[in-house]
Amino acid sequence: MKLVRFGPPGAERPGVWLEDAPGKEQAGILDVRAMAFDIEDYDAHFFSRWGLERLRGLLAEKNRKIVPTEGVRLGPPVARPGKIICLGKNYRDHIAEFDSKTPDRPILFAKAATSLAGPNDPIRIPADAEVDVEVELAAVIGKTARNISEDESMSCVAGYTILDDVTDRAAQRADGQWFRAKSRDTFCPLGPFLVTADEVPDPYALRLTSKIRGQVVQDARASDMIFRIAHLIAYASAAMTLEPGDVLSTGTPGGIGSARQPPVLLRPGDEVEVGIEGLGVQRNRVEPA
Amino acid sequence: MKLVRFGPPGAERPGVWLEDAPGKEQAGILDVRAMAFDIEDYDAHFFSRWGLERLRGLLAEKNRKIVPTEGVRLGPPVARPGKIICLGKNYRDHIAEFDSKTPDRPILFAKAATSLAGPNDPIRIPADAEVDVEVELAAVIGKTARNISEDESMSCVAGYTILDDVTDRAAQRADGQWFRAKSRDTFCPLGPFLVTADEVPDPYALRLTSKIRGQVVQDARASDMIFRIAHLIAYASAAMTLEPGDVLSTGTPGGIGSARQPPVLLRPGDEVEVGIEGLGVQRNRVEPA
Repeated sequence: MKLVRFGPPGAERPGVWLEDAPGKEQAGILDVRAMAFDIEDYDAHFFSRWGLERLRGLLAEKNRKIVPTEGVRLGPPVARPGKIICLGKNYRDHIAEFDSKTPDRPILFAKAATSLAGPNDPIRIPADAEVDVEVELAAVIGKTARNISEDESMSCVAGYTILDDVTDRAAQRADGQWFRAKSRDTFCPLGPFLVTADEVPDPYALRLTSKIRGQVVQDARASDMIFRIAHLIAYASAAMTLEPGDVLSTGTPGGIGSARQPPVLLRPGDEVEVGIEGLGVQRNRVEPA
Repeated sequence: MKLVRFGPPGAERPGVWLEDAPGKEQAGILDVRAMAFDIEDYDAHFFSRWGLERLRGLLAEKNRKIVPTEGVRLGPPVARPGKIICLGKNYRDHIAEFDSKTPDRPILFAKAATSLAGPNDPIRIPADAEVDVEVELAAVIGKTARNISEDESMSCVAGYTILDDVTDRAAQRADGQWFRAKSRDTFCPLGPFLVTADEVPDPYALRLTSKIRGQVVQDARASDMIFRIAHLIAYASAAMTLEPGDVLSTGTPGGIGSARQPPVLLRPGDEVEVGIEGLGVQRNRVEPA
């Protein structure tokens, strides 16, 4: 299933995105709130196995409420994650662009949940910033995990989505700590879909790309990541309890605009396109903050 | 008012702590959920001016439900902050302990909300950690703030509380980024009270202390901080939207155990005491994680 949240910012409704499969399925968004009055939003228990079964049940119902996708705004597919845990330096070519050493352990940092934006919302950048986009494969946690083993950790993944870890390099350099540089409002476009784990049999086969003004800047396979998802979940859960709805992103590959000669930085008016095969595409317009 | 949340972990109820004022007021905790069925917890709107007026109304009611304080566990006074924003290097003597330079701007970082603990809950430390306590004065945000001016920013403060920014120095050194070292479960004791801003006319007059095994390690005035609260709120709100319930902590003074000769690090079995005049005292037992 492809879970979405759709509607105006702050008033999104939960839905299931139905592909256009002629003769088989009607294209559109299944409005699950309209069909089940106790579903206010996708929260903790809807990312669990139980919740996903429930949603599959709604898919099969006769009296489905289908909303056309045309003109519909998508929000981030997770409403209010308790944590957005991101990862520094998990692709060798990205480490090289920073003249940095390959870390002997995952480097975790946080993005503020207030930085979340829908997959096609504008990215708003301040005048004095040097802003990069960073395409990343993110896992959404579906059950509470604390000190979970690597063998068991993949059972905690409800699904996958695209996280654009938008970063202001000027603030990052000035602070040393990365939180502020990566937590501006609109600096975390998420989505379009939360694709449930059963539909992503091999996340490492996925191809990640990002484009600025039509120019491809990142183009890599998730198989290039150094620390794999099972390890990241086990490692993070040894440090802190992971909860349903938490987002764990897996780092960005090389190619970022600020490391290019000449640099390719975001400017107001730009179009940004960030995609992962099978998980969809984000298209954002860059605007002044 | 002194706002508390009391009861077992995860099932706390909101309350107002009533001082023992002989002949004037009954000591105990006003159980506000029992008195107003629509108060599930202190959340966004209860930190607003409207919410605080509502609670003052309950204080004045005849049919008050007062719970004795004896044997009652307190939780953190804020249930699920959207963000816990902390500050590095905001006291000169603490900067000197790290041989670091005074920053020209506030250095923001995040603690995970899952690290929150009640003011007297155990602090659980792993065997390979080097753990410090850090007493800090924290402001709790009462209304949404985005790009707010320094002049207006204090109107966003619902009240003040004590935040112990417990830190694993070994993880902090290894990562460079501070998020993991400061976000372990139990590494953010908060409380005991959220003291409303009207009862803290001069936060800079407050004295902060911390003790490990009875030994005073930190003893300072909030007036020693470099960046003041009004500036911190304005600065943070220029980077990201602040929301009701967000916690903004103001950094820790010098004296931390790891910088002492010999070092005074936490060990299982220790008693830790962290206090700020007028805001109460936290007493935590140290246990193995």
